[in-house]
Amino acid sequence: MSNKLDELRNRVDEINVQLLNLINERARLVQEIGRVKETQGVNRYDPVRERKMLDSILEKNDGPFEKSTLQHLFKEIFKAGLELQEDDHRKALLV
Amino acid sequence: MSNKLDELRNRVDEINVQLLNLINERARLVQEIGRVKETQGVNRYDPVRERKMLDSILEKNDGPFEKSTLQHLFKEIFKAGLELQEDDHRKALLV
Repeated sequence: MSNKLDELRNRVDEINVQLLNLINERARLVQEIGRVKETQGVNRYDPVRERKMLDSILEKNDGPFEKSTLQHLFKEIFKAGLELQEDDHRKALLV
Repeated sequence: MSNKLDELRNRVDEINVQLLNLINERARLVQEIGRVKETQGVNRYDPVRERKMLDSILEKNDGPFEKSTLQHLFKEIFKAGLELQEDDHRKALLV
């Protein structure tokens, strides 16, 4: 393997860790939002808010990924966050 | 909506933008890796490298997401990167 390839891969590895940290930080915020909503009796899933988040992300996109690809990736991230909130909710009910 | 909820949502919005930028930065690196491999005649898809990346990410995970969730999300990110390389390759063939 060339040095160039190694260097690029090292940078990808660094970005992977940053992504990991951000994804988990986002998850903690989403959990907190779930708890706030729980106390207010508001529904956790809010499709209007989700659509607004997506639109706001996509309008900031300058590539190279297509909007459709980013929409897919972020929907997966949103879904994972919602599942986490639902797990928390179930656990809260069991206490 | 409470101020607390607004504040949490603002932080999620900031993280969304950071994620967008990192995901696209990763995509640019993956494109560059694809071009280097192209000149070296190496296969773009490298399952051993992908497995190593995943293991390295998952061992750094301290939650709240489960490893299985992160594995799913990162596999989607990897797949999107590979598709981008393949698009580039097809375009290169058409030039």
